[in-house]
Amino acid sequence: MLKLYYAKASVAIASLVALEEAGADYEAIELDFANRQQRTPEYLGVNPKGRVPALVTDRGIITETPAILVYVAQTHPDAGLAPMDDAYAFAQMQSFNGYMCSTVHVAHAHKMRGRRWADDEAALEAMKKKVPETMAECFSLIETELLRGPWVMGEQFTICDPYLFAVSSWLEADGVDPAGFPAVLDHRNRMRERASVQRALSL
Amino acid sequence: MLKLYYAKASVAIASLVALEEAGADYEAIELDFANRQQRTPEYLGVNPKGRVPALVTDRGIITETPAILVYVAQTHPDAGLAPMDDAYAFAQMQSFNGYMCSTVHVAHAHKMRGRRWADDEAALEAMKKKVPETMAECFSLIETELLRGPWVMGEQFTICDPYLFAVSSWLEADGVDPAGFPAVLDHRNRMRERASVQRALSL
Repeated sequence: MLKLYYAKASVAIASLVALEEAGADYEAIELDFANRQQRTPEYLGVNPKGRVPALVTDRGIITETPAILVYVAQTHPDAGLAPMDDAYAFAQMQSFNGYMCSTVHVAHAHKMRGRRWADDEAALEAMKKKVPETMAECFSLIETELLRGPWVMGEQFTICDPYLFAVSSWLEADGVDPAGFPAVLDHRNRMRERASVQRALSL
Repeated sequence: MLKLYYAKASVAIASLVALEEAGADYEAIELDFANRQQRTPEYLGVNPKGRVPALVTDRGIITETPAILVYVAQTHPDAGLAPMDDAYAFAQMQSFNGYMCSTVHVAHAHKMRGRRWADDEAALEAMKKKVPETMAECFSLIETELLRGPWVMGEQFTICDPYLFAVSSWLEADGVDPAGFPAVLDHRNRMRERASVQRALSL
């Protein structure tokens, strides 16, 4: 059986929702970040990166959200979560997920995880200060260019949707008014109505 | 015919090498970053992100290196650059490429592109100062955990190899002595001997 290591309010919600959408047989294992459980020797033995999500399969572990999402889609083809046989459509989906991990999540991380990139306290404050601006820039691009509607890729619900949901859940805490991004806000509201999201959030 | 927009010394080298390895029919179009050609209205019309690489296909453009790399592999199956039909092996490959884009490239970008995340000059200096440390941490993980040898995924050359080559080319400029990472250095040297890399570097 699959096991997913996750933490509350982390990007792991995207992988949890994808597992639920796929109807996967899995166990969710919570790590308590407040107690730095992601840095225990036990967990570092599972995932040397000391992060979540990490998906344990019978062949080994998979880390990085875009990789986990495609794995879940590819191993549960009946759920139709990714257009694996259409190289261009698949690339569009991968491009969206790549933007989430390389740009949007990184912009967000400068609020609470600035120590990854600077030691100086004033620098950490300068990073925090810019987060509302960088997140708003990212969501402008998402609103106007990337989110086709009603789902990220258009009519078809895909693994991009849980990823956008995870990241758009951070807007208020990052100092961005989601009312400025009505298509994103509508997407978030429709995601919250899905049984998969309700099950993942109730863990 | 495919067109790849690239800039010298950018991560686009990974996509160029993959296109060469695939034997793809493509045209390479250089953008001059010194003259901010990536921000002209013409180029923003092609790629609203104002970045490289961007791959123009007959169906539209693809951005984000991990997406482009898989697209090139999937549309040129004879080159054997990605294990598309083995979900776990594909996930391992995607996980590596995800780490490159979300963590290693981001660590590197704090040297010259700190303005993405802070406006204050002192903060930019604090970010620059930490780059040798963060890049060395990333390459410790690559050296000890991720690079299986002789290629990233083991015996099979995949689209992970051009990506590692692109990123490991930055080590010296980022203040990291590659001698501390002998497997990475050996990989880089073997990449430089490949005809694909020589053709991409000669553009």
